[in-house]
Amino acid sequence: DRTIDLAVISGDGIGPEVVAQGLKVLTAVLPQDVKLETHEYDLGAKRWHATGETLTDAELEKLKGHDAILLGAIGDPGVPSGVLERGLLLKLRFAFDHFVNLRPSKLFPNTSSPLAGRPEIDFVVVREGTEGPYVGNGGTIRKGTPHEVANEVSVNTAYGVERVVRDAYARAQARPARKLTLVHKNNVLVHAGHLWKDTFDRVGREFPEVSTDYLHVDAATIFLVTDPARFDVIVTDNLFGDIITDLAAAVSGGIGLAASGNINPTREFPSMFEPVHGSAPDIAGSGKADPTATVLSVALLLRHLGFEAEAARVDEAVTADLAERGETARTTDEIGEALAARVAG
Amino acid sequence: DRTIDLAVISGDGIGPEVVAQGLKVLTAVLPQDVKLETHEYDLGAKRWHATGETLTDAELEKLKGHDAILLGAIGDPGVPSGVLERGLLLKLRFAFDHFVNLRPSKLFPNTSSPLAGRPEIDFVVVREGTEGPYVGNGGTIRKGTPHEVANEVSVNTAYGVERVVRDAYARAQARPARKLTLVHKNNVLVHAGHLWKDTFDRVGREFPEVSTDYLHVDAATIFLVTDPARFDVIVTDNLFGDIITDLAAAVSGGIGLAASGNINPTREFPSMFEPVHGSAPDIAGSGKADPTATVLSVALLLRHLGFEAEAARVDEAVTADLAERGETARTTDEIGEALAARVAG
Ligand SMILES: CC(C)[C@H](C(=O)O)[C@@H](O)C(=O)O
Ligand SMILES: CC(C)[C@H](C(=O)O)[C@@H](O)C(=O)O
Repeated sequence: DRTIDLAVISGDGIGPEVVAQGLKVLTAVLPQDVKLETHEYDLGAKRWHATGETLTDAELEKLKGHDAILLGAIGDPGVPSGVLERGLLLKLRFAFDHFVNLRPSKLFPNTSSPLAGRPEIDFVVVREGTEGPYVGNGGTIRKGTPHEVANEVSVNTAYGVERVVRDAYARAQARPARKLTLVHKNNVLVHAGHLWKDTFDRVGREFPEVSTDYLHVDAATIFLVTDPARFDVIVTDNLFGDIITDLAAAVSGGIGLAASGNINPTREFPSMFEPVHGSAPDIAGSGKADPTATVLSVALLLRHLGFEAEAARVDEAVTADLAERGETARTTDEIGEALAARVAG
Repeated sequence: DRTIDLAVISGDGIGPEVVAQGLKVLTAVLPQDVKLETHEYDLGAKRWHATGETLTDAELEKLKGHDAILLGAIGDPGVPSGVLERGLLLKLRFAFDHFVNLRPSKLFPNTSSPLAGRPEIDFVVVREGTEGPYVGNGGTIRKGTPHEVANEVSVNTAYGVERVVRDAYARAQARPARKLTLVHKNNVLVHAGHLWKDTFDRVGREFPEVSTDYLHVDAATIFLVTDPARFDVIVTDNLFGDIITDLAAAVSGGIGLAASGNINPTREFPSMFEPVHGSAPDIAGSGKADPTATVLSVALLLRHLGFEAEAARVDEAVTADLAERGETARTTDEIGEALAARVAG
């Protein structure tokens, strides 16, 4: 019998509510002979308020032992900006070398899009997860004085860029449209831009069947609202990826449906799956949170662990559920139950 | 009699075509006693192909003597990425200390928006123009090897942030809604983010009538497509401003209507006005280019030079022209003629 040893970071606000539904669907879809073991880690804003701790070295070490991590959402307005981001979320992404931050965008049936005419949307963004402006290599001098200077350094390495670009080509190669778009700003950020573009062109010669395209990040935001159907796979740096995936989520049904995987393709460390949305303290406890993004993140988790058929069943359940849902609003629990029933059926 | 001594950089592609219409409208709207002198500078891709020069020190020196600069568009696909951006456009913005990059967004009547339901859109982005990731303080080591490292440094100073934030507050104060939103990413770029947020809060105490708001750049892109009516004035850094103003242009009628001013509010150096769009070589010479963005940039130029009534007449002419235009497509020249006739009338 196989076992999935899953670390769970339910977190704050709606985090625990959506994670409960994600686990319900995961349990329902797994084959009989696969055992699911979950280990909850008490991390996030509540923990920080109580202890001042974000993530201890001991916890980081323990997390390493799991097959994967499911994260709900962390943060509340009482925590100073950056504390949990740098001390927990980004710490995990960096420590576990999550260099592929995978964010699919799909306009599901019956979802509301702000775009007129509901264009076809079905693409995936491969966002670099361990470099760029996110490395935290910045600093401030003369803080709080009229002579303060605050710098942020974006670090980009051949090693880091090549591995994520290669991953993106492989994903593009495996999709019907076989198209990969590099998004950067190489006319201004010329050093990083050269490295990205040169790597993109060089690795591309190994994937002659994948057609390629380059867009500046500003132009990419235009196409995301005027012609999102043009995208198949996008590869981009950490910060540009952060920005365009929120926009991509907004045009394809909203952040309540956006899943993500922080993936270490080498499997040296556990990968982490999380909805793109935050902890939404304003609706926590009201049953209004949509667990669909978490359930779709569970599908990414299943796929990463080799349960391709089960992942597909979860994706299909979400599509069918959205296609057939009625007019009445459903609670977090009702949506989770409906999806669990579909994948079990 | 007064004279406006205008430097003109028509540039490449559709640049000269739209500038011709911008000048036509400018000539038509100016009072009889104001003389317009224009001096064309041969700068851009054509010049670079012919001579290898982007902008000489002598030209930069000469440009300093003008009251303002009107720029069409520069670039063509034959120029390596970054050459004209760094060597001409950004060189001018930096040399002339254009710290306020002003980009209004307005959804005019009869324009096509990709957003369903055509929301109210009428806001202005104050983009910092002389700092941030645009400073060019980056570098590469071990270029072309598997050990290449390419860095980009975003530099932010108290001096630079405070002056643009103050300018944005003053603009918000002068508008009916009196609302200013800071857009940054202070949960990740904590050093620059602190400087921006602290400055924003501190300067805000001098503008008690302006209500304020903070958004991470990723969240800002969501609101730009789901609720653009919430924005009045936005202040943000150079790179975030680049990204969100292209998105803002896309949701409010397209890049063909987006005007911009690279402004030095101290008037130490000439300010530069330019449409946000590029040189569009694919439609150059076809008469298809829309000169409206250039004409709206001329309105910003007039306002900067103290011709408020004339600026308002240009803005009104554009609104009326779009409201009353028929179904048939018009040429670049026809649109320019129509606008010139309106402002003269
Ligand atoms: C919370 C924040 C650090 C994070 C990011 O910027 O990566 C979030 O916006 C995301 O996209 O997962
Ligand atoms: C051409 C490029 C350097 C420029 C910028 O990035 O500022 C353009 O995109 C703009 O927005 O004016």
